[in-house]
Amino acid sequence: MTDLRIERDCLGEMEIPNDQYYGIQTHRMEKVSGTANLPVIFYPDMHYALAQIKKAAAIANGKIGAMPADVSKAIAQACDEMLTGKFNDQFPLDMWQGGGYTCVNMNVNEVIGNRANEILTGHKGTEKVHPNTHVNMGQSTNDTIPSATHLGMIGRVDELIKQLELLAASLRKKEEEFKDVVKVGRTCIQDALPLTLGQEFSGYASVVERMARKVRHLRPGCFEIVMGGSAVGTGFSAAPGYKDALYVELSKQYGEEVKPMENLFDGFQNPDFIVEVSGVLKEVAMTLSKICKDFRLMGSGPRSGFMEVNVPALSPGSSIMPGKINPTVPEMVIQISHQVVGNDVAISMAYDEGELDLNVWDATFYKCLFENFQLINSELEILRAHCVDGMTANKERCAQEANSSIALSTVVATALGYPMGVKVAHYCEQTGKNVREAVVEMGLMTVEEAKKLVDPMLMTNPHAAGPVVDAFKKEKKLI
Amino acid sequence: MTDLRIERDCLGEMEIPNDQYYGIQTHRMEKVSGTANLPVIFYPDMHYALAQIKKAAAIANGKIGAMPADVSKAIAQACDEMLTGKFNDQFPLDMWQGGGYTCVNMNVNEVIGNRANEILTGHKGTEKVHPNTHVNMGQSTNDTIPSATHLGMIGRVDELIKQLELLAASLRKKEEEFKDVVKVGRTCIQDALPLTLGQEFSGYASVVERMARKVRHLRPGCFEIVMGGSAVGTGFSAAPGYKDALYVELSKQYGEEVKPMENLFDGFQNPDFIVEVSGVLKEVAMTLSKICKDFRLMGSGPRSGFMEVNVPALSPGSSIMPGKINPTVPEMVIQISHQVVGNDVAISMAYDEGELDLNVWDATFYKCLFENFQLINSELEILRAHCVDGMTANKERCAQEANSSIALSTVVATALGYPMGVKVAHYCEQTGKNVREAVVEMGLMTVEEAKKLVDPMLMTNPHAAGPVVDAFKKEKKLI
Amino acid sequence: MTDLRIERDCLGEMEIPNDQYYGIQTHRMEKVSGTANLPVIFYPDMHYALAQIKKAAAIANGKIGAMPADVSKAIAQACDEMLTGKFNDQFPLDMWQGGGYTCVNMNVNEVIGNRANEILTGHKGTEKVHPNTHVNMGQSTNDTIPSATHLGMIGRVDELIKQLELLAASLRKKEEEFKDVVKVGRTCIQDALPLTLGQEFSGYASVVERMARKVRHLRPGCFEIVMGGSAVGTGFSAAPGYKDALYVELSKQYGEEVKPMENLFDGFQNPDFIVEVSGVLKEVAMTLSKICKDFRLMGSGPRSGFMEVNVPALSPGSSIMPGKINPTVPEMVIQISHQVVGNDVAISMAYDEGELDLNVWDATFYKCLFENFQLINSELEILRAHCVDGMTANKERCAQEANSSIALSTVVATALGYPMGVKVAHYCEQTGKNVREAVVEMGLMTVEEAKKLVDPMLMTNPHAAGPVVDAFKKEKKLI
Amino acid sequence: MTDLRIERDCLGEMEIPNDQYYGIQTHRMEKVSGTANLPVIFYPDMHYALAQIKKAAAIANGKIGAMPADVSKAIAQACDEMLTGKFNDQFPLDMWQGGGYTCVNMNVNEVIGNRANEILTGHKGTEKVHPNTHVNMGQSTNDTIPSATHLGMIGRVDELIKQLELLAASLRKKEEEFKDVVKVGRTCIQDALPLTLGQEFSGYASVVERMARKVRHLRPGCFEIVMGGSAVGTGFSAAPGYKDALYVELSKQYGEEVKPMENLFDGFQNPDFIVEVSGVLKEVAMTLSKICKDFRLMGSGPRSGFMEVNVPALSPGSSIMPGKINPTVPEMVIQISHQVVGNDVAISMAYDEGELDLNVWDATFYKCLFENFQLINSELEILRAHCVDGMTANKERCAQEANSSIALSTVVATALGYPMGVKVAHYCEQTGKNVREAVVEMGLMTVEEAKKLVDPMLMTNPHAAGPVVDAFKKEKKLI
Repeated sequence: MTDLRIERDCLGEMEIPNDQYYGIQTHRMEKVSGTANLPVIFYPDMHYALAQIKKAAAIANGKIGAMPADVSKAIAQACDEMLTGKFNDQFPLDMWQGGGYTCVNMNVNEVIGNRANEILTGHKGTEKVHPNTHVNMGQSTNDTIPSATHLGMIGRVDELIKQLELLAASLRKKEEEFKDVVKVGRTCIQDALPLTLGQEFSGYASVVERMARKVRHLRPGCFEIVMGGSAVGTGFSAAPGYKDALYVELSKQYGEEVKPMENLFDGFQNPDFIVEVSGVLKEVAMTLSKICKDFRLMGSGPRSGFMEVNVPALSPGSSIMPGKINPTVPEMVIQISHQVVGNDVAISMAYDEGELDLNVWDATFYKCLFENFQLINSELEILRAHCVDGMTANKERCAQEANSSIALSTVVATALGYPMGVKVAHYCEQTGKNVREAVVEMGLMTVEEAKKLVDPMLMTNPHAAGPVVDAFKKEKKLI
Repeated sequence: MTDLRIERDCLGEMEIPNDQYYGIQTHRMEKVSGTANLPVIFYPDMHYALAQIKKAAAIANGKIGAMPADVSKAIAQACDEMLTGKFNDQFPLDMWQGGGYTCVNMNVNEVIGNRANEILTGHKGTEKVHPNTHVNMGQSTNDTIPSATHLGMIGRVDELIKQLELLAASLRKKEEEFKDVVKVGRTCIQDALPLTLGQEFSGYASVVERMARKVRHLRPGCFEIVMGGSAVGTGFSAAPGYKDALYVELSKQYGEEVKPMENLFDGFQNPDFIVEVSGVLKEVAMTLSKICKDFRLMGSGPRSGFMEVNVPALSPGSSIMPGKINPTVPEMVIQISHQVVGNDVAISMAYDEGELDLNVWDATFYKCLFENFQLINSELEILRAHCVDGMTANKERCAQEANSSIALSTVVATALGYPMGVKVAHYCEQTGKNVREAVVEMGLMTVEEAKKLVDPMLMTNPHAAGPVVDAFKKEKKLI
Repeated sequence: MTDLRIERDCLGEMEIPNDQYYGIQTHRMEKVSGTANLPVIFYPDMHYALAQIKKAAAIANGKIGAMPADVSKAIAQACDEMLTGKFNDQFPLDMWQGGGYTCVNMNVNEVIGNRANEILTGHKGTEKVHPNTHVNMGQSTNDTIPSATHLGMIGRVDELIKQLELLAASLRKKEEEFKDVVKVGRTCIQDALPLTLGQEFSGYASVVERMARKVRHLRPGCFEIVMGGSAVGTGFSAAPGYKDALYVELSKQYGEEVKPMENLFDGFQNPDFIVEVSGVLKEVAMTLSKICKDFRLMGSGPRSGFMEVNVPALSPGSSIMPGKINPTVPEMVIQISHQVVGNDVAISMAYDEGELDLNVWDATFYKCLFENFQLINSELEILRAHCVDGMTANKERCAQEANSSIALSTVVATALGYPMGVKVAHYCEQTGKNVREAVVEMGLMTVEEAKKLVDPMLMTNPHAAGPVVDAFKKEKKLI
Repeated sequence: MTDLRIERDCLGEMEIPNDQYYGIQTHRMEKVSGTANLPVIFYPDMHYALAQIKKAAAIANGKIGAMPADVSKAIAQACDEMLTGKFNDQFPLDMWQGGGYTCVNMNVNEVIGNRANEILTGHKGTEKVHPNTHVNMGQSTNDTIPSATHLGMIGRVDELIKQLELLAASLRKKEEEFKDVVKVGRTCIQDALPLTLGQEFSGYASVVERMARKVRHLRPGCFEIVMGGSAVGTGFSAAPGYKDALYVELSKQYGEEVKPMENLFDGFQNPDFIVEVSGVLKEVAMTLSKICKDFRLMGSGPRSGFMEVNVPALSPGSSIMPGKINPTVPEMVIQISHQVVGNDVAISMAYDEGELDLNVWDATFYKCLFENFQLINSELEILRAHCVDGMTANKERCAQEANSSIALSTVVATALGYPMGVKVAHYCEQTGKNVREAVVEMGLMTVEEAKKLVDPMLMTNPHAAGPVVDAFKKEKKLI
């Protein structure tokens, strides 16, 4: 027989199995919970941030004399225990909940309250510690949940910066490794002027580094929260001195300054920071997707594609065609971008539908944002370790492409005017010759000159190419 | 010490713990798996559909003599066992995978292959049954995965139809219950002509019924698949007679006709049916969201809102404000719509980025589509049972609203011309009087006439109202 | 000096230049109009449909005796004049307007009213015909605007069906033209089993034909409208007999049955048909985008890409690189798909944010939907005439690809088991040989057998290939 | 008879009406142009920025001796003329074009080239000035178009900052005006703690100010461009010294430093700045939408809504219901947000689909981004002048709401513990009494105390409320 305790709230009373730290309000919401079959704590960041907030509030309220010292201490201890993860199974509520996650806040209040009461009295209940009166003192769901969303992001943002920097470093290594691999450039997926594979990878590295910088710019926003606003931004119900003491304590706990938004009414109404974070995550995911699309194209083949690079083989690529290898990691990254863009739309809708004194669409924000963090942080490591680091170049194939490109006729256009460039291109198309052959056969250059000027590698370096073309033009008395 | 077996594929060999039914290819992909921390089988529909397909293929190949009878039988038995759910822990791969879910197909091939081999020989391995040669015979990832996605939807679609019909029935009951509750209509959120709460609910019921019909129209598409196309739509590798036998068997297993798409090249290239299903799911989710937004507005209060209906109270609505009750279920439904719209965008991107002979973005399709099914099917039940069924009307409040509405002056405009309607409206605004009072005070109607014509309930019934207005106009010699 | 007339409404009076048919309410809204710098009538469909509705209403009201015969006739004549386009400059209001396009309806009421009054009296004004009392008789913005949106779509839908069918016919011609062009198939952008270019185009034709069917299914919905509901769905203000007479007349004007939605409250609340139409347009745009992406890939080169087809050259493709030709039409189509998907999101948001007794987001619906129609209908003709019709195949290049593909080892896997297929693929990778050479060198087939079985064209035809493989297996006593 | 000239390009020759400044390449693309029926120059920003770039390039090339002085001067003069708008009718190409807007660049090259040639020779043609060789010297479509997109944004961004600051100033005025209007707060659209209307407007002002700051952060990115990269980022074809001279000249023309992106390969590959700008525009549009939704809700009525504020009446709000006024400006703003979010999705797709050495989806970027700028900049002025500035408060109605709110029981929870707060709330619900009455009737406070503590205005000021509650608790010996 299970031990039961009786709990009461404004809607009545309920018998609760006494081994549960959560109580009546959590139980009430469990009935309408479970749509996703995935609890909020699947991403544990919010719960841990709530534990930090509850702890800081208890300590602050203790300091200013609004809460008895023993209650303050017991709540702080309960929060510390919660931060070890030992109560993770006491948070059963599903990801999708209305009411601005009031139930999530209350679930935490109940668990901490019962545990703190237990610490003080040896049993659960509200004898010494009440979930609303004490654990929630000076707070409201309306300031704790958005604040916990911000604080909960810190670890994710830091991990993301780290992973982006690691990927950029890997790409920089490849830039160096591929610096002598000259290849055809492609715009509108048509052969264009040559460049080196290293130059292409320098572009990848550069954008990933910029993404790391963009993510870093988000950090301060994570530390700017709306605690102290209580229910509607006015801060009503907090004891004098509470807000200042709370931020001192939170800053201590996080080891960096945590501070309130300047205008809490604004803060309650407008979670635009979430939209901003989501926008940057979207840029990151799409940037990775773009790079991975290049990997797929450049690795297409093995006999009838671009065949410029070898994407590391991870697994047989077909259940029927022997020897086929798929670019599975790039494809995973591409698909994750779909999800991230989709979640950004969801977050945008939730922001757009904000209303009056509080944007209450916390579930959309939390689920979609943290799913995006989860996916991107994980894929970055896989992409780096299982794709980029092992990528190799097909130097000969690339060189052959570069030399055959009709776009090399640009050097003719540059030296002898665009219309002459057109004639050379036309000659190549008609005869199948390459540009170096064409300029000689058309009597525009000597073999020597052609070798010097119609050189893909030269064209990848404007500092070197400019003077060479210039010298030729001068010799021909064109300038 | 764990018992190990050696497995080989085109990339080399690997030691596999012998208690695992899955093998080398699944292990290879596990290294790059885990971005979502959620396995594909979190939504088990695809795996069960694959088991049905593998079973049907084995039976078909057995029938036409392409596969030994004992192998065919063993595979079929392994599939039946898989359909009980007993191997669910043998599918470790994460939701997000590239390669068009080749690894998911191979994971299933390995599990069934090892189990079938075990049935025949007493141990796992490929002695009698090979995952590619036998379990995958005549198939490819490229026809099995999209086909399994279609077949996997059947149960979800049927559940959705059922839930929509149940909700519509509940709404019809409320339509009847609220048929005498006359209230103010609102357009542009301004007071408009009156209608009954029952009429509003008839609109809700009607649209939910239409949604059920739209979902029902999707059923045939679920049964139309691309099996028989093998790797690129040509069907190469299948033994003569395989395709026909396969469809006969699949139809038997599903109890309804399963049939191939007419042009399999088209089928491989274009999963537009997924986009279509997603579009309908989006319509459903948004329709429910719209209804729930109405519930929130009509239930706003309790002292300073519309206060027309009472949304059932589920839980205290605030951690700080006693007595507050939130419309949590409607809010959950609204938020789920954000996610569903977002997932629809993800699915659209995946369709838009299709390429050449196969759309390989199966992970996006599967995750986003089945998440939407999961959310909508679950929320429908909760919305019905915990919100609609218990909703009540504030008849007095509604009547008071209806009677005070200046839009009742429309009856004047109808009877005496629009400019006179404007004058009455103006009089009401200036004096604070209601329309019934105004028309009498302005000498436009007798008290009797005003009572008869300026009657909100009358105005909700055009069949009744038309003749009444007509009679008045005739009496006044206006027509 | 301009001739002026005085007009009045509930907010006061205004001097109107007397050469304008539009009046005070349009002028009032002009002040807040112009955000897009694009008038609603940029897409004239709604205005013409409103003219049809006003005409039908006038005739109906005349017939039932609610409107004097001369007024009815004058309004009908004014509507006919409007349908010639001669008043198009009398509709200055910008695309983006609130109030559910009340101002658009009133602009039409004013223009028709003034013109009808002019017909009857020789001058503008409300002496005989009032824009609200007469032109708008029995109607409301709330039923006319959504109804005009539906009716306005008819012409666009019919044009879309026509254009899709024309494109499909062009693609069918290419299917025939390319039926002997065997090439490598590609899945995950890696070489896969062979198929013919004709088979690929059969897929394109097939999906475009299906799109035409999907669009055709939308036609009935265009003819199902909410006229008769007046302001909130109750139909209040309409004279007895009006609704039936109206639909008779509208059906006559459109030459097909126009009918009311069954539940007008539903119809007012839920413009899900718009979402449905938008969804189909999105499928069309994305399908075209996918095909165009294939054209780009297959046409990549001219020296370093896939080079399988020649996309017709329209213009020089670079301002700097002579001879470069870009796939501009395919790229236009791809970009238009971005816009169409974006507009679908906008439409979805507008639906999701529906509220109470009327979805008032008509501007979003109209602008985004008709922009999509405009873009898709136009691009279809360009794509067909300037891209598909002139496309040619590089048969030799395709054949060379097909023969070199390692995926041809699938025939070995089929005949001799998957592990032997893997060995052959491995041999090819190591030696650079093709599969036909490999199977002979490995002693698996005679030169004769290899020529017969390792034949890409054979593999494109499963009906032919199955028996050949079967015969080989039987000869080898494998079955 | 029209005077004709002959022009040639790599695809052949064409007769061009000699009064046209644009030439053969523009004509070629006109055939496939017109899908939107809206020319690129509908938003003239790109064309003007291209004129600036062409001018700077001509001057730079002149300076370094790569271009004859007279040609340089003539091109610069032609650019200056183009900047007056006098050639705007010479740019007929439609918004939607493939090829990375090569045709737009060439259209500009042709117009400037012909005009410059005319300046030098008295007639159009390429005698002295060639569109590619001279006007486009050192450039490519691939660096000019993205650079023009950036530079073209400057004016839009500055206007946006200005408009946001003007709106914020208006909102600050209203904050002051409404500072004494105490009203009920609302979370989850249920009555919550009181605040002042001024506090709500302070939130609006604060977020609009933040948006202005976010937009200001975009300015530097507008000045960072990819000129000098020519076709693929290498800068090939430019004469020595060109790049430096170009940026000096551009900076002079714009009056601020224009500088190249650090890594041009990155710059060519990744237009993430466009996504970033679009993201901020989306935040702005949605923030305005949220504020406007509040205006609608707070202005709902006039007899049966919230009736807290009066939204200025602009026009009659119904064609049928006299006296109805709609919140048309707020509704326009809400709808524009739909479009802006949709366009952001389009832009995201275009970024996600970037490929290899150049993102060529310039049409999507340009159309969607500048449509968003156009809409937002215009709506801001309308929203401020025709809605915010004229808004007034219903002080009595607000006060009545605030006093009736059961959420005032929070003061009891704060002073006497949450369970006692619940009892008071319950009492109010049962009896219909307000909290001030309840606490007295329940014997919890004296009339005096109740008047002091249960005071909505007091509760809006936590600095004042805290000490009052504290004093009460001390008196009652609760702390």
